[in-house]
Amino acid sequence: MHKVRVGIIGASGYTGLEAIKVLLSHRYVEITSLTALPEDTGPIGKIFPALRGKLNIDIEPFDIDKFTKKVDIALCCLPHKVSMSYVPSLLESGLKVIDFSADYRLKDISIYEKFYTTHTDKENLKKAVYGLPEIYKDLISKTSLVANPGCFPTSIILGLAPLLKEGLVDTNETIIASSITGVSGAGRRPSLQYHFPEMNENIFPYAIGGSHRHSPEIEQVISDIAGKNISFLFQPHVASIDRGILSTIYTTPKEDIRQEKLFELYKSFYNKAPFVRILEEAPKLKAVANTNFCDIHPVVCHCGRKIIVFSAIDNLIKGASGQAVQNLNIMCGFDEKEGLL
Amino acid sequence: MHKVRVGIIGASGYTGLEAIKVLLSHRYVEITSLTALPEDTGPIGKIFPALRGKLNIDIEPFDIDKFTKKVDIALCCLPHKVSMSYVPSLLESGLKVIDFSADYRLKDISIYEKFYTTHTDKENLKKAVYGLPEIYKDLISKTSLVANPGCFPTSIILGLAPLLKEGLVDTNETIIASSITGVSGAGRRPSLQYHFPEMNENIFPYAIGGSHRHSPEIEQVISDIAGKNISFLFQPHVASIDRGILSTIYTTPKEDIRQEKLFELYKSFYNKAPFVRILEEAPKLKAVANTNFCDIHPVVCHCGRKIIVFSAIDNLIKGASGQAVQNLNIMCGFDEKEGLL
Amino acid sequence: MHKVRVGIIGASGYTGLEAIKVLLSHRYVEITSLTALPEDTGPIGKIFPALRGKLNIDIEPFDIDKFTKKVDIALCCLPHKVSMSYVPSLLESGLKVIDFSADYRLKDISIYEKFYTTHTDKENLKKAVYGLPEIYKDLISKTSLVANPGCFPTSIILGLAPLLKEGLVDTNETIIASSITGVSGAGRRPSLQYHFPEMNENIFPYAIGGSHRHSPEIEQVISDIAGKNISFLFQPHVASIDRGILSTIYTTPKEDIRQEKLFELYKSFYNKAPFVRILEEAPKLKAVANTNFCDIHPVVCHCGRKIIVFSAIDNLIKGASGQAVQNLNIMCGFDEKEGLL
Amino acid sequence: MHKVRVGIIGASGYTGLEAIKVLLSHRYVEITSLTALPEDTGPIGKIFPALRGKLNIDIEPFDIDKFTKKVDIALCCLPHKVSMSYVPSLLESGLKVIDFSADYRLKDISIYEKFYTTHTDKENLKKAVYGLPEIYKDLISKTSLVANPGCFPTSIILGLAPLLKEGLVDTNETIIASSITGVSGAGRRPSLQYHFPEMNENIFPYAIGGSHRHSPEIEQVISDIAGKNISFLFQPHVASIDRGILSTIYTTPKEDIRQEKLFELYKSFYNKAPFVRILEEAPKLKAVANTNFCDIHPVVCHCGRKIIVFSAIDNLIKGASGQAVQNLNIMCGFDEKEGLL
Repeated sequence: MHKVRVGIIGASGYTGLEAIKVLLSHRYVEITSLTALPEDTGPIGKIFPALRGKLNIDIEPFDIDKFTKKVDIALCCLPHKVSMSYVPSLLESGLKVIDFSADYRLKDISIYEKFYTTHTDKENLKKAVYGLPEIYKDLISKTSLVANPGCFPTSIILGLAPLLKEGLVDTNETIIASSITGVSGAGRRPSLQYHFPEMNENIFPYAIGGSHRHSPEIEQVISDIAGKNISFLFQPHVASIDRGILSTIYTTPKEDIRQEKLFELYKSFYNKAPFVRILEEAPKLKAVANTNFCDIHPVVCHCGRKIIVFSAIDNLIKGASGQAVQNLNIMCGFDEKEGLL
Repeated sequence: MHKVRVGIIGASGYTGLEAIKVLLSHRYVEITSLTALPEDTGPIGKIFPALRGKLNIDIEPFDIDKFTKKVDIALCCLPHKVSMSYVPSLLESGLKVIDFSADYRLKDISIYEKFYTTHTDKENLKKAVYGLPEIYKDLISKTSLVANPGCFPTSIILGLAPLLKEGLVDTNETIIASSITGVSGAGRRPSLQYHFPEMNENIFPYAIGGSHRHSPEIEQVISDIAGKNISFLFQPHVASIDRGILSTIYTTPKEDIRQEKLFELYKSFYNKAPFVRILEEAPKLKAVANTNFCDIHPVVCHCGRKIIVFSAIDNLIKGASGQAVQNLNIMCGFDEKEGLL
Repeated sequence: MHKVRVGIIGASGYTGLEAIKVLLSHRYVEITSLTALPEDTGPIGKIFPALRGKLNIDIEPFDIDKFTKKVDIALCCLPHKVSMSYVPSLLESGLKVIDFSADYRLKDISIYEKFYTTHTDKENLKKAVYGLPEIYKDLISKTSLVANPGCFPTSIILGLAPLLKEGLVDTNETIIASSITGVSGAGRRPSLQYHFPEMNENIFPYAIGGSHRHSPEIEQVISDIAGKNISFLFQPHVASIDRGILSTIYTTPKEDIRQEKLFELYKSFYNKAPFVRILEEAPKLKAVANTNFCDIHPVVCHCGRKIIVFSAIDNLIKGASGQAVQNLNIMCGFDEKEGLL
Repeated sequence: MHKVRVGIIGASGYTGLEAIKVLLSHRYVEITSLTALPEDTGPIGKIFPALRGKLNIDIEPFDIDKFTKKVDIALCCLPHKVSMSYVPSLLESGLKVIDFSADYRLKDISIYEKFYTTHTDKENLKKAVYGLPEIYKDLISKTSLVANPGCFPTSIILGLAPLLKEGLVDTNETIIASSITGVSGAGRRPSLQYHFPEMNENIFPYAIGGSHRHSPEIEQVISDIAGKNISFLFQPHVASIDRGILSTIYTTPKEDIRQEKLFELYKSFYNKAPFVRILEEAPKLKAVANTNFCDIHPVVCHCGRKIIVFSAIDNLIKGASGQAVQNLNIMCGFDEKEGLL
């Protein structure tokens, strides 16, 4: 079989590294180009010593002509704003694109511009598909531009989708998502806050009171799933572990529901989703670390007045690079699981 | 000055160790007796190597006669049920008692018996004072039996008290406390769950859906403070750090309130509390580790529909042994801060 | 291609788990049987939640007849003494065996019996091959019983082999290996020592002064490689990380050697070894975690009087289950790297 | 009693923080001045949130006149080279000085200049006393300038002193010290290497092959103690914990010695040293964390050919700020233990 040629733009960060690791066990793709800013170029084994002996390729400065000649599908591991300056020419050259930034996620430009910056590629924004395969698989299979979801949104939306789709939530009450992430979610740039002696043995909240940029992304998608506007509050925390996101989501049921029925609803909703595991007990981050799984446990509280949904993922895999490869598989017609088990 | 003689029953666990450490820097007390189950007796430096060279005393099996002769005030670091088999004879012998278990915390016996076991000391239960100095200082100063609060309740009640006292919370809406604790909260007995390779780099919820035994304790006290029944949901999580509790508490304000006013309310409420620090930014667990402080940050959410209160303590100090010494100081007429700064 | 059927005896420990993970990405084997003691049997996903959705098989009690009918090659992840009670019947039934215990590693029975227990399978011991592929590949390819090396021996022997083979070490001087391991090396049974709050943020030596059972194993193999008896001292330490072994090995050169020549010697010695990476700078444990690589950096000290060799592996992969699969590949005629990159 | 007024120059780093913490529990000193570079000035609670409510003082830019008016004894927590630009004027103004840098430790200027930079204060260097109280207590009590020892040297010299003093070591053989430090030893400035996701779950050697700047410092002092030149090799490693240094020191005994005698030698040598604990089993870092103790276990190896000494300290306390206060106590005629137990 002719292999699909994959290029990664912004290969020197954590999502780039994870994408490479996942792709190395993929039978039908070949990594043909890695690019980064000039200061991060050189043999991949020098940037990421863990890859020595696994992949023998250089990270190079980006050159649109060279890149598009060698690549069929591009993973853009770039920050917002930068991404939308690369994507248009990639699409014009006929490449498929999976974009990791927020640039193609928010359909309402005014919200994007409130939380981020001026949007400079409205044309392609319209065509972009939100790359959450468990919800939008068909659309993903037909698009050439996937907006790969944020890490928190992935865990929260997957946790809420069955409840919202079935209309079981009292939408007059604010849904609250209290999430904890590992430090790799903050990226690879050193800072005092994440300096080891400061961060080790530490936990704290950030983006206080609903100010995280993933809030509007989550609201948009859960409102789309529910078919109406959802009132939602998102509070993230960071804990001194490498990787993983645990979201504890508090919702108010419209009417009484038994635990067994709730559990069956989730089982049946994710029945064909190979990477969602509905558990009969609480998920643990360590069981999803280094995997593309999302572990979910929905529970009716003892008081009967609330439903809590626990949802756990690896922020760099299901929350970023693994999900991107899952999207790539769908876009290319491969088995959705290829390279991911 | 004649020193107060302190004995610790159940000195071989983590709260016993922390109590010893705190008392070693207390100028007006002397540790005169340490007891534990026979298998944990011997020189204190053998049980806790960190104490070698600091304290030269043996942990001995408990003997009521020997103990009461040497001790003015007893710290009972025992599990529930066991505690109430020791406390009556200590009180009868004229000792003051600070009890770390749940046995004297719940005023409603039927609730105690639902969550724990048959209560065998109803007489003393009536006299016991809930040992949260920021709220019940006067009562503590007059009692001979203090029920030292649980670790989660300490962080949550201190976080909520100003709001409830001022009647600012819409009590039709369930208050939600989403807490994260370090592993020392689980005690010193080995188990697979807390075996290092299982627990390290891990986070998970437990006591799912409002089933934690601290729930009724918190409900009792916050209802007492509010002057009416409060609907409350408590969900704890454990993370791979040694110590600390971070509680993120979601409440619904009765009416609009500005951030500045909320902040001033907290500052003024804890104005005379030397161990509560009201912060203008989010608390971090590392800043309260190994201290008796409770760091609190109350915030009106961007949406205006919720108030989040963040509250951080060291679970073994302010959540247990430090608070016990704070209570001891009040019971003995010492400066509340003695030994704790 | 007809897949080789693999069974794992003692599948409920950490080496069993890692062996399963590695074999799941192996194209030419199929896991057909997992066994453990009765208390650890049941669906594999219940024992190891991380494996849910990846492998759908039960761990069963061992039954020699059932096992040998389903299996071509057995991985024995059993403790010493237990192992040699299983291996003879497996070999008799025509299976190939890769044994993880010490039972078939020490050729001198008196040494085995001094450090372990009475040896009950001297017959097979004679035939067993020490499964360090970088040194004994040919023998491994021809045997049906491989004694899979210990984790510390793997890191230390690979670090020393080029020096000893070339006769560059002054063998009158004791070679010292000072190693640090992650806690998973201690196995999965809970104990106070490895209880999270005791072990976290901790480092300490154990098996003090040359008493570790891996000492005679290392001495035997390095003496074999050197062609004469080597005086050797091994001191292990454990640190609060999950996985990895870093060995810092101090040797005395016979005569002056330049850094460049030393480096070239190592490069050339491991020239055909796909899992040994000779580095120009110090190895880091994180770069070998979850891989089958051994990272080695040999260095002539500034004083010229010592050569230090740094050698890093993942104790559960190259130090156990990954190496076992490497051996399996050689025994079955597969590419040595299959399933391991 | 009139309190001694202490000032800390360079108060915004980790050793400054620890010095403050230790001094806060000292009955006979008062912190009267804290200084730092302009970018790190402001209320101490803003720089170190953990100190809020404990100390109410500003960190200010250094001003020699203001400083010397308010201070009797200065702790210089400055890097090498910077330190010797402050110390002369402090001494001239009549202050006592405890210097944390390397500037006054190395008596041989040519060695200092080889490892560091041009020395600009040779005059005071001559008068400086090496501040290891267990060895140089008398000299410390009489000097006005103490060169506070490095963290590695403290652990290694204390581990070796009894052996060298007694002449038990074969000094023809190189003594090897293989040490492991926590990350706080690297200071508070962020870097990729110590960025949490890079450093967490990681261990690696650095200052490879005897190149660490503490090497000549150790050699100088152990040669002074032994009364002759000692051949010595020092190899440090860093592990993903906050604090602590464990040194494993390999020496060759001149002649046979029994374990009991070795142990007694150490007990007797440190008989009057309140902060050295000679253990009958291996030290653990966690038992010395946050203390001023040095835990030592000397052991004759099974082979009889080597003596290993294990020595553990908290790098920031006994390895820096606690030792400084111990020196301060000796210089001021206080009990050596004041503020440190």
